[in-house]
Amino acid sequence: MTKVTSISGFPEWLPEEKLFEERLIAQIRSLYESFGYTPIETPAVELIATLASKGVVEKEIYSVRRLRGEAGEEAEWGLHFDLTVPLARYVAQHAHNLTFPFRRYQVQKVWRGDRPQRGRFREFYQFDIDVIARQDLPLTADAEVVTLIDQAVSLFELGDHQLRMNSRKLLEGFYQALSLSDAQTKGAIVAVDKLDKIGVEGVRGELLKIDGLAGQQAERILELAALRANPEEFFDRVSSLQVTGERFAAGCEEIEAVLALLPKITRDRTVIDFSLARGLDYYSGIIVEVVVPGQPQFGTVAGGGRYDNLASEFGGEALPGVGMSIGLTRLMDLIFSSKLKPLTQKCPTELFVTVLGDDQRIACNEVAAQLRKVGLNVEVSLKSPKLGKQIEYAEAKGIRFVLFLDPSANTLRVKDLVTKVQTEVADLHAAVKLVSSAG
Amino acid sequence: MTKVTSISGFPEWLPEEKLFEERLIAQIRSLYESFGYTPIETPAVELIATLASKGVVEKEIYSVRRLRGEAGEEAEWGLHFDLTVPLARYVAQHAHNLTFPFRRYQVQKVWRGDRPQRGRFREFYQFDIDVIARQDLPLTADAEVVTLIDQAVSLFELGDHQLRMNSRKLLEGFYQALSLSDAQTKGAIVAVDKLDKIGVEGVRGELLKIDGLAGQQAERILELAALRANPEEFFDRVSSLQVTGERFAAGCEEIEAVLALLPKITRDRTVIDFSLARGLDYYSGIIVEVVVPGQPQFGTVAGGGRYDNLASEFGGEALPGVGMSIGLTRLMDLIFSSKLKPLTQKCPTELFVTVLGDDQRIACNEVAAQLRKVGLNVEVSLKSPKLGKQIEYAEAKGIRFVLFLDPSANTLRVKDLVTKVQTEVADLHAAVKLVSSAG
Repeated sequence: MTKVTSISGFPEWLPEEKLFEERLIAQIRSLYESFGYTPIETPAVELIATLASKGVVEKEIYSVRRLRGEAGEEAEWGLHFDLTVPLARYVAQHAHNLTFPFRRYQVQKVWRGDRPQRGRFREFYQFDIDVIARQDLPLTADAEVVTLIDQAVSLFELGDHQLRMNSRKLLEGFYQALSLSDAQTKGAIVAVDKLDKIGVEGVRGELLKIDGLAGQQAERILELAALRANPEEFFDRVSSLQVTGERFAAGCEEIEAVLALLPKITRDRTVIDFSLARGLDYYSGIIVEVVVPGQPQFGTVAGGGRYDNLASEFGGEALPGVGMSIGLTRLMDLIFSSKLKPLTQKCPTELFVTVLGDDQRIACNEVAAQLRKVGLNVEVSLKSPKLGKQIEYAEAKGIRFVLFLDPSANTLRVKDLVTKVQTEVADLHAAVKLVSSAG
Repeated sequence: MTKVTSISGFPEWLPEEKLFEERLIAQIRSLYESFGYTPIETPAVELIATLASKGVVEKEIYSVRRLRGEAGEEAEWGLHFDLTVPLARYVAQHAHNLTFPFRRYQVQKVWRGDRPQRGRFREFYQFDIDVIARQDLPLTADAEVVTLIDQAVSLFELGDHQLRMNSRKLLEGFYQALSLSDAQTKGAIVAVDKLDKIGVEGVRGELLKIDGLAGQQAERILELAALRANPEEFFDRVSSLQVTGERFAAGCEEIEAVLALLPKITRDRTVIDFSLARGLDYYSGIIVEVVVPGQPQFGTVAGGGRYDNLASEFGGEALPGVGMSIGLTRLMDLIFSSKLKPLTQKCPTELFVTVLGDDQRIACNEVAAQLRKVGLNVEVSLKSPKLGKQIEYAEAKGIRFVLFLDPSANTLRVKDLVTKVQTEVADLHAAVKLVSSAG
């Protein structure tokens, strides 16, 4: 006999949780498609050579090989650890079959050989959008992606969220103006990125460890990182910094341009956060993170930004892009464990059709078929035991409405298991109306 | 630089193909949910011990381990090779949180270390439905699952399909009446299952290889396998066989009962095929396969049946069930490679909004937002180059309608890129009507 155990770090939802997740995935899909983003899907595995090229921590890669493969055979394949590397390979491979700018969304599981802990998983869903262009991509794309992620996060109903925005060019221009070298700039970005985790003192320590970086430079870097600005304050704030230089100016301009292109509701949720760095190497322009101030335990809900060349390691022309990612599984786990949503619905059924006796089953099936045609999700009792048992089953599954059909008496009754009100209805049309109006 | 290559046996669709697949998945989901089936999802990996317990060919299992794990460390996890083993483990593990009969659907990728060839993949989607009960499950569940698979296959629009039905009890009862031992019965089922592949001569050869099986017995087995009956002929056909015995009678009764519970349209597509055996060990009652006579290259499109105890290897109470599975990826591959469907749509966009100049972008974005609110998928041009370029882009992506917006002149025009007809519309409402009416 085999023991039944969960594998640590590989979450598995109960039906009521999975139903909730599926509904959200469907809503996000539909939102992204309403902006013309097309779904793609890549295999779970990539060549190890492809995965390793992005400079990921190799020990986080899971390799895949046949259980009874040749002895000593080297693993050639690994499970993808994000959706950006597969996207880069996909675009490079299929470029001649794609139309650019290429707007795509992708919702798939990714795998990381991380030590499992609360909110950190080894298998989890990412939900990504990206726009990829050939040669050049206007800032209209950045604005569109930020608008979309704002609307996507709203679907989770976590309370008011905030879009933290910054620009890599602005950061780098500021560091250049302080005479930091390229290497020192990279180090400073990595250090500042840790502000939320290790605090000002921690970041100061990290900065001072950077080779050749002076105390005065570190203080100026920390000063910038302490700044915040609403969209309408942004111009004054950066002016008061009195920084000159092309790169810094370009960074300010791109933030101004993107802010101007956002719908008002999205712009009102945006804060320019000069501490935002995002550790990943490949960002080159606008960077964004979404947080929920009222739910600090959620941390960063979504994040992304602009990059110069998606598929640089595959050669070929420059493919600039901008993208954002939602860590779906982490969010689900936080929502479920904090009981933020009442999960009463354990199945998609809206109406449960009771069956008084086996001789009435065909009639019940036909009624159910008619109700499904007008869009209701309808379950017919598989058994015809006592009515009480059938209602118990519906209640246990969180089905709100039960239909009692008596073909001999030619009556139809609908019971609302929440309000306990039972209504005799004239026909199926009236039954549908009753169920649909309950929302 | 990394070479870009596909991994053999791991299919990857272009946007127009993926869009088609997604639409079908959504339709099947919605169908299954309309009968109250709830989605579940299990991790991609299971313990090797769990996977191997079902007696699968071990060399087909892919193991998963950290690329830089400890040397000599044994692989503990494998990728699931079907959705039945994970379902069994899920139900055994979460039984106390589930309501039985448990109706679930599951659409996930599975992995098999098979030699890749046309129509055989190493990574592919399966789309499963099952109903699981505690202790006993009435035949109403079998009928429901058969009804559903009939409706699901219809969604693929492959032309008229046929449901081939048989009963394991009928087969086993017939073999018992021929005095076959249990071991000979198992062997005979495996042999008869190959009829489509190796023909009558081949099966005869296999039967005669079964230890102690006589030539006359083999001939009677082949006689049965040659029989076919429409639902209305079924009773006469089995009566004419003059077989006695409880098991045979039980098999006939369950077929009669399920046929009586099917909607007429499904029953009319059903043929009792006495050669149908389905090789898998665990079937114990009704077995079904779906074929498309007009598309023989599609082979078996879906299949399944009744089993006695889903989670026997995990101990505990008996969990009888009935389920069906669609081999989605294989079907998609056949549809795409046979060019059965015109795949002109490379994105979900229904209407493309052109932008005459950057000063009109905000107005264009607002119009797009309004159109999305009423349910249209709308893309706004990211650039504002010459109109001709913008229309070329829409055409290349297979977007049918283009909107020209001239806020200064206060005019709206919609062009249908298929009929080439351009229409001036009074307002957005009229534009929506025009696009929606095109289907």
